[in-house]
Amino acid sequence: MNLTVAQIAEIIKAEFKGDANFIPCAPCGLDFPKEGGIGYVSDIKKIDFESIKTGALIVPASAKNDEIPFKGVLFYAENPEWAFTQILRIADTLNKDIVAQIHAKAYVSDKAFIGKNVHIGANATVEDGAFIGDDTIIYPNVYVGRNVKIGAFCVLYPNVTVREDCVLKNKVILQPGCVIGSDGFGYIFYNGKHEKIPQIGNVIIEDDVEIGANTTIDRAKINSTVIGANTKIDNLVQVGHNVKIGRASIIVSQAGIAGSAIIGNGVIIAGQAGLSGHLKIGDRATIGPQAGIMSDVEAGAKVIGSPSMNYGEFMRSYAVLKKLPELYKEFMSLKKKFKFFG
Amino acid sequence: MNLTVAQIAEIIKAEFKGDANFIPCAPCGLDFPKEGGIGYVSDIKKIDFESIKTGALIVPASAKNDEIPFKGVLFYAENPEWAFTQILRIADTLNKDIVAQIHAKAYVSDKAFIGKNVHIGANATVEDGAFIGDDTIIYPNVYVGRNVKIGAFCVLYPNVTVREDCVLKNKVILQPGCVIGSDGFGYIFYNGKHEKIPQIGNVIIEDDVEIGANTTIDRAKINSTVIGANTKIDNLVQVGHNVKIGRASIIVSQAGIAGSAIIGNGVIIAGQAGLSGHLKIGDRATIGPQAGIMSDVEAGAKVIGSPSMNYGEFMRSYAVLKKLPELYKEFMSLKKKFKFFG
Amino acid sequence: MNLTVAQIAEIIKAEFKGDANFIPCAPCGLDFPKEGGIGYVSDIKKIDFESIKTGALIVPASAKNDEIPFKGVLFYAENPEWAFTQILRIADTLNKDIVAQIHAKAYVSDKAFIGKNVHIGANATVEDGAFIGDDTIIYPNVYVGRNVKIGAFCVLYPNVTVREDCVLKNKVILQPGCVIGSDGFGYIFYNGKHEKIPQIGNVIIEDDVEIGANTTIDRAKINSTVIGANTKIDNLVQVGHNVKIGRASIIVSQAGIAGSAIIGNGVIIAGQAGLSGHLKIGDRATIGPQAGIMSDVEAGAKVIGSPSMNYGEFMRSYAVLKKLPELYKEFMSLKKKFKFFG
Repeated sequence: MNLTVAQIAEIIKAEFKGDANFIPCAPCGLDFPKEGGIGYVSDIKKIDFESIKTGALIVPASAKNDEIPFKGVLFYAENPEWAFTQILRIADTLNKDIVAQIHAKAYVSDKAFIGKNVHIGANATVEDGAFIGDDTIIYPNVYVGRNVKIGAFCVLYPNVTVREDCVLKNKVILQPGCVIGSDGFGYIFYNGKHEKIPQIGNVIIEDDVEIGANTTIDRAKINSTVIGANTKIDNLVQVGHNVKIGRASIIVSQAGIAGSAIIGNGVIIAGQAGLSGHLKIGDRATIGPQAGIMSDVEAGAKVIGSPSMNYGEFMRSYAVLKKLPELYKEFMSLKKKFKFFG
Repeated sequence: MNLTVAQIAEIIKAEFKGDANFIPCAPCGLDFPKEGGIGYVSDIKKIDFESIKTGALIVPASAKNDEIPFKGVLFYAENPEWAFTQILRIADTLNKDIVAQIHAKAYVSDKAFIGKNVHIGANATVEDGAFIGDDTIIYPNVYVGRNVKIGAFCVLYPNVTVREDCVLKNKVILQPGCVIGSDGFGYIFYNGKHEKIPQIGNVIIEDDVEIGANTTIDRAKINSTVIGANTKIDNLVQVGHNVKIGRASIIVSQAGIAGSAIIGNGVIIAGQAGLSGHLKIGDRATIGPQAGIMSDVEAGAKVIGSPSMNYGEFMRSYAVLKKLPELYKEFMSLKKKFKFFG
Repeated sequence: MNLTVAQIAEIIKAEFKGDANFIPCAPCGLDFPKEGGIGYVSDIKKIDFESIKTGALIVPASAKNDEIPFKGVLFYAENPEWAFTQILRIADTLNKDIVAQIHAKAYVSDKAFIGKNVHIGANATVEDGAFIGDDTIIYPNVYVGRNVKIGAFCVLYPNVTVREDCVLKNKVILQPGCVIGSDGFGYIFYNGKHEKIPQIGNVIIEDDVEIGANTTIDRAKINSTVIGANTKIDNLVQVGHNVKIGRASIIVSQAGIAGSAIIGNGVIIAGQAGLSGHLKIGDRATIGPQAGIMSDVEAGAKVIGSPSMNYGEFMRSYAVLKKLPELYKEFMSLKKKFKFFG
């Protein structure tokens, strides 16, 4: 990083106490502290400061008048995690030294439009009619189909596939191996056979979305599958055709969303949860891990279980579930005792 | 599309009422109707026709003598969804204008056999001894291994891998990123270590099968993993080594089938269901979403739950599960009342 | 294979009875026996030997003095499955005839270091600063990122992605489409938006690990995600950032391990199981299929269910769960009878 404490303080907008000229060697977590490194603490009550061996530490601004027994530099930041994130962004040199160029071993159609300062890596393919916005990075071995539109400042990691006609707006990140615009799973059973229903729609991915490694997002049957701005999708997630996901939602790894579901804003879908087709999930709802959702979920609701219940209801049922064998035995004995009433 | 009502009527074999020269602009769903478009309705009782703004509508032939308050053109088809599917197939121009050629940036071994009218895209790899049948399309960045046999009219989308010795018959579609012929998961624990058991079999995919994006189908240990004709597999599905799947079965996204299972014809396996190894699933059985199958399932059975039960049994148990906390409380109070009998 | 019975006996260190000059045509399972082939039997009590049509059979050495009514050659091996595995390894000619060369259609940076006897296939990409150890095979269409270190005798199958800075030690096998070093799923919600936390760590994969097709292993936020020696991971598994997995563990298909979990040695995680973040799984623990793990699991424990219970506890609860509707009915009738006590 090679930044002094004084320079860091300016970047993260924090006051500090200690040697202004000290240069922390690297950001680090407190579980793997580095001597001379810089870490952060969100809640000072939980910490044994004397045991921390880093050279610098970001603590909450609210702790400014507390006595903190730490020997290194202390930064006081409104939001220590956010301050630390900014330091990670400085330390993250990936993509910074990539020279914008079209690699000689890439194939870029002469009917594609390539913006300024675009990088296209070796063995990547960009087909006819594709549009790549300024400052976008296409890693090696990526496939960009016909008439795909990609905005500015996007990053497509290796082995990504974006099929024809799909749209990525700005600052979209696609992790390796993810597939945008595969055919929706649609067949009609006719004359004793499953006959394919062509999927002639596309996928639209709005600004500032990230899609995880090997995640698959199917194109719509006719219109568009839509991933709203600032939504973040983890690895190995399935998004079916015609799904609409709102803004700033979080979809965790291996979750599956069947076709035509409408997911609101700020929704959280935990890992391995599954949603049936044609459902509506209200804003800010939380779907628990491995939940099986078979009906609509109201805004703000918190559900879990398969089929799902409200969180509290599930936890109460689950508590009794563990006592079931005992309950059953007791019931049978009670029943026996009172048999003569029968 | 640029087809008149009269031309469409001939293609979908339907009578019609209205302007024979009208040209519908595009197929559309009634959830996103397009002015001037053409949609379909399977059940006329559920529809408020006056609110539909499309230019044409396909309705069941049985409605021919009904008064339908729709202002545009009406088609009367035996099976409106099938008629509409044919229109989608006309509208689906994908692959139609692909020029059959081997791209200069592909690598095709001179020991491979390439049929007539085959397209091989940029950065695709076709190894020694591979056979590609007539009219097959290999998209860019696909890998076709040694001695792979691919039939006629197949489509392999980008970033697909077909490893050595696997067989695809005719009209097989592989969505992007799927893997055919990865090693089965087989080890022997010997001398304190997991030692790999070589997987020297292959995968055979019969006619008219479609495999979803990023789905993985392992090669057999010795013989063949087999996917039967007309079976359709969704995205991110796992099929273990030596599995045999029959004809016209449907495997929905993120389902997993462990090694050596035998799946019948016309089976439906819903999303995220999991099947243990060495099971037999009878013809036309239905496995519910997220079901965990640990024993054989009879032909025609409908199971759900983890571990699974018959559908009706599960639903009754689940209904009581929700009442468990209350039941428990009542039982405890009853028990207390009758303690003096004890 | 073209080996005589006498030669095979020497390789698998087994005595035999029968024609020393007979040449078995191929290894085979007893479910699909081949005339003239060689199979194995681990437990002679379960077998009807007269029905077996193979030319040779490996049986346990302990059966040497038993009368076995089999007409072909019998081998007596300490561990028949292990003996058979060695025969499969001879039959497995894959990779044996690959000529070590860098394909003209690969891109290998001149700032990469390539060891002796390395094969790099067509359309593969090897970036600046990468190191490929001796005798390693990089299949076509693989991506090896900047400063990746790969040891000796590794095999990377097609369409694999290894992102920058990751480390593969020796004898690592990566099945097609797997992703090593995708960004961990980390965001901070700041100013009404999910802001990306850079993931500047890497993945370290130790000796003799195998990773399944389309499996994803996220890089650490700061340090390393670690997969311990001899651990075997199946297809479509998700391993979150900062996870540490010990030695000789088995992770079955579609399991998911959330961030920062610490998994011991010899652990078995069955298919579709899910583990929440920051958990500790003790050595030799067994996690059942589809289990949902929300708290630490002790060494040697066997758990199942979602949320999980001990295996015995789960099975007892599950048995009652099936009787719940009946229990409920009986309870209601009992309650009614005794209402006059109320």
